[in-house]
Amino acid sequence: MSLSLNQWTTRRWSVAEAVDGCVRHGLEAVGLWREKVAEQGLARSAALVREAGLRVSSLCRGGFLTAGGLPGEEGRLAFGRALDDNRRAVDEAAELGAACLVMVVGGLPGVRPGEPLPSGSSRDVAGASEVAGFSKDVAGARERVAEALSVLAPYAGERGVRLALEPLHPVYCPDRAVLSTLGQALDLCLPYPAEQVGVVVDTFHVWWDPRLSEDVARAAGRIASYQVCDYLHPLPADVLLGRGMMGDGVIDFAPITRAVLAAGYTGDIEVEIFNADVWAADPDEVLATMKARYAELVV
Amino acid sequence: MSLSLNQWTTRRWSVAEAVDGCVRHGLEAVGLWREKVAEQGLARSAALVREAGLRVSSLCRGGFLTAGGLPGEEGRLAFGRALDDNRRAVDEAAELGAACLVMVVGGLPGVRPGEPLPSGSSRDVAGASEVAGFSKDVAGARERVAEALSVLAPYAGERGVRLALEPLHPVYCPDRAVLSTLGQALDLCLPYPAEQVGVVVDTFHVWWDPRLSEDVARAAGRIASYQVCDYLHPLPADVLLGRGMMGDGVIDFAPITRAVLAAGYTGDIEVEIFNADVWAADPDEVLATMKARYAELVV
Repeated sequence: MSLSLNQWTTRRWSVAEAVDGCVRHGLEAVGLWREKVAEQGLARSAALVREAGLRVSSLCRGGFLTAGGLPGEEGRLAFGRALDDNRRAVDEAAELGAACLVMVVGGLPGVRPGEPLPSGSSRDVAGASEVAGFSKDVAGARERVAEALSVLAPYAGERGVRLALEPLHPVYCPDRAVLSTLGQALDLCLPYPAEQVGVVVDTFHVWWDPRLSEDVARAAGRIASYQVCDYLHPLPADVLLGRGMMGDGVIDFAPITRAVLAAGYTGDIEVEIFNADVWAADPDEVLATMKARYAELVV
Repeated sequence: MSLSLNQWTTRRWSVAEAVDGCVRHGLEAVGLWREKVAEQGLARSAALVREAGLRVSSLCRGGFLTAGGLPGEEGRLAFGRALDDNRRAVDEAAELGAACLVMVVGGLPGVRPGEPLPSGSSRDVAGASEVAGFSKDVAGARERVAEALSVLAPYAGERGVRLALEPLHPVYCPDRAVLSTLGQALDLCLPYPAEQVGVVVDTFHVWWDPRLSEDVARAAGRIASYQVCDYLHPLPADVLLGRGMMGDGVIDFAPITRAVLAAGYTGDIEVEIFNADVWAADPDEVLATMKARYAELVV
């Protein structure tokens, strides 16, 4: 097991720069993002990590599977587009040799990440759960995720790619992930072999969960990725950027790391930080701080 | 069962004004806040609601029991002060004839509601969970809540007051409540008779919970209060004010209300909104809107 740089932590770096940075700082693994891989070129990205001798601890990210919950033709088409995009993500993960494809499953159908609710107020239609361009049917959205998984898990399995379902903090339930707890993610995994579908344990998203210890134990064999960053308090106005360098927030990492290791996890530990200050800093300084804090607080 | 005004929804109103407003708008119940009751006078407040023929659906709020998790003398004294304050809250609930005393249990020890983390960075002490004036030990904080309950539940029981444990949305875990799910609240109730300790189901806090249906069913006989308001998206910068009028956010109320009723709840349904726009509006207009939305969306 070793420390891995999720490249969104050093967001300004291209794949080539991130690979170079990992090598210079003595890291053995990197987590890549599809947007960055596309900019660099898929084949070129795969060659870069291979030539550098790095493991690809994850590819971020597939998912956003819930728009199919919109009614009628709009929902049907959105579901088809989401499946197509996720098949491409699986193919990319296979070519990169990524340990897993991280899946952020999507929020309420029709609610776009980080944007206000669709036009008008949802109270235009009395008592309806399908109103004003989005759906309030969170249970239905969760069913769409399970349905999509029944298509994507075999596809991934045939290509040797492991899907990693990421429960997100409940504050992201409206717009990013109706998958809100580790327990819920594990239940979604059950129909599939462990090498086809696993879970992400991301400290930011799960630190508060009163069932965390027991669900991490239950996740033995299913933990596809362990990601760390701190939970800032108060959260910034854009809650997406509430992820902080380890030590800057409220999370006690050691007990979570112990539980993840006790559950048999032997993969890399990725540091993934969305934070305006971290993004503005010199990426080499970020890596140096990340390594120090990791040694001090995480393991 | 009937609609109740939680008086924080019309925050500018005194107890006398809220009681008068409820009567004018044909409501049968009101939820009171300790600060407002203290301003009006406890005996006078009790007389006002009694003379108006209103039920007191809840008294808000006791709790903040976790500071005892700070080390040494500081923790011991803080725990004693919290118990004393909660005994007073129980006494007040008894005098008001409140259906329950709502308990917001408190966040990480040393983290003050809505304020930045205590001075300096928590990374000053390597790997320690007790640093820089606050504790990151969320499991320990939860144990302090259980410990306090073992003192307060019998005290409340002797005075005919029902404690209502309120799970808060996980976004409030650092600073307001380490009690984060309905399931966790129910587990805390188990050692006590149902008439001594129950739970609050507040739509804002629990709508996202994938276990909500089963936990509401499990809460049969334990639901001491059902509170409604919507969950705004995106949340405002001060997440405390993310509570909206029903219909203005993402919550589908009808299934939650059905589940609460199916679990045998026969109490009042309180509307509790913390929202700058609602507070700035004419309270009489707020009540009119609240009644209309309640009829349209909640029941």
